Amino acid sequence: MSVASIHKPVQQELEQVEQAISEVTRSEIPEVQKMLEMVLSASGKRLRPTIALLAGRFGEYRPQHLVPLAASIELLHTATLVHDDVIDDSDTRRGQPTVNSRYHNASSVMLGDYMFAHAADLICRTESIEVVKLFTRTLLAMAGGELTQDMTAYEYGQDTMQYFHRIAGKTASLFATSAEGGAKVAGASEEWTKSLHDYGENLGMTFQIVDDILDFEGDEAELGKPTGSDLLSGTLTLPSLLLMERHPDDNPVKKLFADKQNGNEHLAQAILMIRDTSILEESHAVARDFRDRAIASLEQLPDTADRASLAEVADHVIERRS
Amino acid sequence: MSVASIHKPVQQELEQVEQAISEVTRSEIPEVQKMLEMVLSASGKRLRPTIALLAGRFGEYRPQHLVPLAASIELLHTATLVHDDVIDDSDTRRGQPTVNSRYHNASSVMLGDYMFAHAADLICRTESIEVVKLFTRTLLAMAGGELTQDMTAYEYGQDTMQYFHRIAGKTASLFATSAEGGAKVAGASEEWTKSLHDYGENLGMTFQIVDDILDFEGDEAELGKPTGSDLLSGTLTLPSLLLMERHPDDNPVKKLFADKQNGNEHLAQAILMIRDTSILEESHAVARDFRDRAIASLEQLPDTADRASLAEVADHVIERRS
Repeated sequence: MSVASIHKPVQQELEQVEQAISEVTRSEIPEVQKMLEMVLSASGKRLRPTIALLAGRFGEYRPQHLVPLAASIELLHTATLVHDDVIDDSDTRRGQPTVNSRYHNASSVMLGDYMFAHAADLICRTESIEVVKLFTRTLLAMAGGELTQDMTAYEYGQDTMQYFHRIAGKTASLFATSAEGGAKVAGASEEWTKSLHDYGENLGMTFQIVDDILDFEGDEAELGKPTGSDLLSGTLTLPSLLLMERHPDDNPVKKLFADKQNGNEHLAQAILMIRDTSILEESHAVARDFRDRAIASLEQLPDTADRASLAEVADHVIERRS
Repeated sequence: MSVASIHKPVQQELEQVEQAISEVTRSEIPEVQKMLEMVLSASGKRLRPTIALLAGRFGEYRPQHLVPLAASIELLHTATLVHDDVIDDSDTRRGQPTVNSRYHNASSVMLGDYMFAHAADLICRTESIEVVKLFTRTLLAMAGGELTQDMTAYEYGQDTMQYFHRIAGKTASLFATSAEGGAKVAGASEEWTKSLHDYGENLGMTFQIVDDILDFEGDEAELGKPTGSDLLSGTLTLPSLLLMERHPDDNPVKKLFADKQNGNEHLAQAILMIRDTSILEESHAVARDFRDRAIASLEQLPDTADRASLAEVADHVIERRS
């Protein structure tokens, strides 16, 4: 399932979303305009807006509120990436130089804040305090998840439950809000809204787990970042947690956290062990399990082409290689 | 007019505001809790909540919405300070070490985002999409003002009009929203709401101009930061702009921007010239003029004790020494 084919059913509205986003990038200050273009044109897959637009078809179709919702979510997502790159001190993202590497941290902090402000402005255009509250809860979950990740970096005693909890806040909450927000804008029934929320949440979990697998399995050139970068910066994800579970007493993760100076050596060992064993296959199985739950959540909804499209998004997320 | 006496008319609600803010500081993560306490207990004067609470008395008094509004505004204000300290790379604020100096920039970025999220959560508790929109417009104005300030740093060709425009976004917008938000929560008439907005905006201009005067005139120990720090970091404010107007061809500001390596030498010269001439008196006159406009804006309102209290806040702002 290619990105182009999952975009197809909402192609027209997606163009309006791009339009709404590009209006935001117009700044009086040339330097700001340049930074915004740099960030927003490093085009992602627009998965979240696609989900919001599809979910908005389960009820009364209101593009005048749906397009700002979808644009707001994508802008919020991109704003968090800008701040994440400062936090992680990343030089590249999707193979492109980051704002903080090209400019400086101060610019990235301000640019992220400016994009947050525009995301908040767009969400208000849904004219629904309920949707704004949903957006706000997501902000809290994401910011909380990010803080937890940072504060527990290089902490050896974490388990998979803590990992699931962390990625639920950091990633799945925004996917859940994409789907639930679409349903709310459409005035969908409570039952459908709940189904779409569950779909989004499970899909978000799938997305993050696949991301974390790709960090070990993926091709550096395709990913646009070095392999194992999460582990090197002290973040435990599913594959490294499974490695630790299997070798509780002696494993390269423990060595890496205890001896950061020789980090790259221990990292290479960890990557080898993770790739050599069934850990990656097991991780994929966990991701597939969340994908299945996402698709099962759709069962309450009428069996329409839009429902099939949402299922196809889930398949794309599990199959992606970058 | 002391801070205690301007708090007095809204003492009870201010305590509820403190309560709402302190609920936010409770985090499961001890490190986060510590950082939040560090930021929020470095107690400011709570001027903005005081204004919001007083403005909320011109109409139907609704403390259940007014207290979240006031708490949200103070939290947003503090969040911007946390990010400002990263942007300006400041080590101290109000004489206390900043989060970025004690921890690291990444923590400050995340902490600021977390506080923004809580501010957004609180503003939604006003249950008014109109008030949320006001909050959002302020976010845009503040973020835009901050970006403009950074992008025009060390730019020599600025004039006082650009300065007024910049501080209107950076500072006055949040004061305007404090007063206008209070009026909106109270369901005040359009005329009163406009009066209160104008009061807040003019008071915000006064506040920032006094701040910028204190940066040259004030006592380092009282201010908790070195004299002339704005100019040293390339930000032109009213006193330095007036100095440049008087000596367009040869002045230490020009030298400072052209020769940052000997920055402190040129800065000392600029401070001497600003203190020696009538520039500070002229700057004070401009601040008083905005204060007068703030008080004149109140004339449309009924002549109550609350109106008198708002006028007293304006007097406090002009008289403050730190």
